[in-house]
Amino acid sequence: MIRDAFDAWMRSEIEAVEAALQRFVPAETPGGLGVAMRYGVLDGGKRLRPLLVLAACAAVNSGSETSASRRAMLREASLRAACAVELIHAYSLVHDDMPCMDNDVLRRGKPTVHVRFGEAQAMLAGDAMQALAFEVLTPDEAVVAPALQAQMVRLLARAAGHDGMAGGQAIDLASVGLPMSEASLQDMHRRKTGALLQASVLMGAHCGEPGGMARRALAGYGAAIGLAFQVIDDILDVTQGSEVLGKTAGKDADANKPTYVSVLGLDGARERAHALVGEARSALASSGLADVAWLGLLAERVIHRDC
Amino acid sequence: MIRDAFDAWMRSEIEAVEAALQRFVPAETPGGLGVAMRYGVLDGGKRLRPLLVLAACAAVNSGSETSASRRAMLREASLRAACAVELIHAYSLVHDDMPCMDNDVLRRGKPTVHVRFGEAQAMLAGDAMQALAFEVLTPDEAVVAPALQAQMVRLLARAAGHDGMAGGQAIDLASVGLPMSEASLQDMHRRKTGALLQASVLMGAHCGEPGGMARRALAGYGAAIGLAFQVIDDILDVTQGSEVLGKTAGKDADANKPTYVSVLGLDGARERAHALVGEARSALASSGLADVAWLGLLAERVIHRDC
Repeated sequence: MIRDAFDAWMRSEIEAVEAALQRFVPAETPGGLGVAMRYGVLDGGKRLRPLLVLAACAAVNSGSETSASRRAMLREASLRAACAVELIHAYSLVHDDMPCMDNDVLRRGKPTVHVRFGEAQAMLAGDAMQALAFEVLTPDEAVVAPALQAQMVRLLARAAGHDGMAGGQAIDLASVGLPMSEASLQDMHRRKTGALLQASVLMGAHCGEPGGMARRALAGYGAAIGLAFQVIDDILDVTQGSEVLGKTAGKDADANKPTYVSVLGLDGARERAHALVGEARSALASSGLADVAWLGLLAERVIHRDC
Repeated sequence: MIRDAFDAWMRSEIEAVEAALQRFVPAETPGGLGVAMRYGVLDGGKRLRPLLVLAACAAVNSGSETSASRRAMLREASLRAACAVELIHAYSLVHDDMPCMDNDVLRRGKPTVHVRFGEAQAMLAGDAMQALAFEVLTPDEAVVAPALQAQMVRLLARAAGHDGMAGGQAIDLASVGLPMSEASLQDMHRRKTGALLQASVLMGAHCGEPGGMARRALAGYGAAIGLAFQVIDDILDVTQGSEVLGKTAGKDADANKPTYVSVLGLDGARERAHALVGEARSALASSGLADVAWLGLLAERVIHRDC
């Protein structure tokens, strides 16, 4: 029954995120850039990061009494954060798929952006998607409280940059064909995938006023599922076909990249993923927050996904 | 005499900006990304955008009485804005020089970032520089007032994105070899180069509390010198050699791109540039601000530069 409610919540939130992205990503732009941007971000993806933002926002606000106007402001702030984090994720995929990086032609079951629009337009679309993420986070002061806007930008910029996602990609680039310890692999993935997933949780958490204990717990939850997500990604890369994944399967092994499967073996990687989801659940249990059901079920979804 | 003072002001501010960039752009980063980022942004460039931020900040604060702590906060905010706008500018050059865009090997008298570090690292370094710009704008709340942080991000994200710089680049890409009216050329350049130059002025202006009249005047000044800068760029592209420019000369004509020189002719372009600087000076004169000397001299510098 809770699962039905969870599915209904997910469907409704994903619809809200799609509608907001439709609103924020312009169709008509100079040079046709908006068309490429929309192709890169609309109608695709599991929207895990937006769901984490919205579930964390729901968790920190459950049971708290707030005025209708403040509730409306926090809803707008969390939807904008959800779209911004998805824009960063989507831009990173657009750039990552380009010939000078992974040279991939398939993504979310469609030709990649550079295949469809050319490399130059793909690079510009990715660049503009990153800028748009920060634009979405900073509407007029009447729409979202300015201190909350600044906090959201602070979290997202750090997670996306040299110390987060881009830094992790650079490690990835530098380590092709080299032996890698589990500790180094973990450091790479904490940045490359984990930082943005954790930032999603923290951005949602900032749409309320959780105490220090809850905040630390949510940070721990975000870190654990961030890593679990990548471990599962590595497992799926070898166990699933391209058709199910919607992207080219087996490419990490082909590219001779270190993965959790290459370092721990398939069974070891599966054990690791389960342990991490256990960590995420323990963190939630220690948060002191009344209603963390959606966050708990999202953690489960991360590990039981098949694409 | 005022020119000596201006030169001294410029030297000292450029030094402050270089020191701040040294502080903000990390040397030690995962995957060596910081090395490529520093190569792309340190020790080079005329730093026109940072100087516009700082001159506008000086103009709106001249004569106003402020506490020492607020002055220190505004100084930090304006220096961060100066670095952020330069990071956006520098990242756009890194991406613009890549083979899928302009395919250029020379920039600021050095091999371009992708020539030195490879295409993948250049793309990541540019991506991380954009994220860093927004990170620099959002330090701890005690360092810069959060509402000012949000305002700075708002201005910079819009100027960098689909409706500004990236949009202008997309128009540029779409119009190679096509005939272009002066109006379309102007629209393209107002976005591609003008938006960021104007944002520099506006970000500086937000480090004070100029009235509506002064704000409109500074916006007009920023728009006029933004366009003048591009007209001069087009002129220099045909009148100067690569050695003086520090980048490949004559490439717009080679690429069959519309420019102010191709549309207006060399003399027409020169007249246009002078008219625009006149507009910029009129805007300053109508601002009601007591001390706009540095902004006036920067406008002159834009038109009298030889590289």
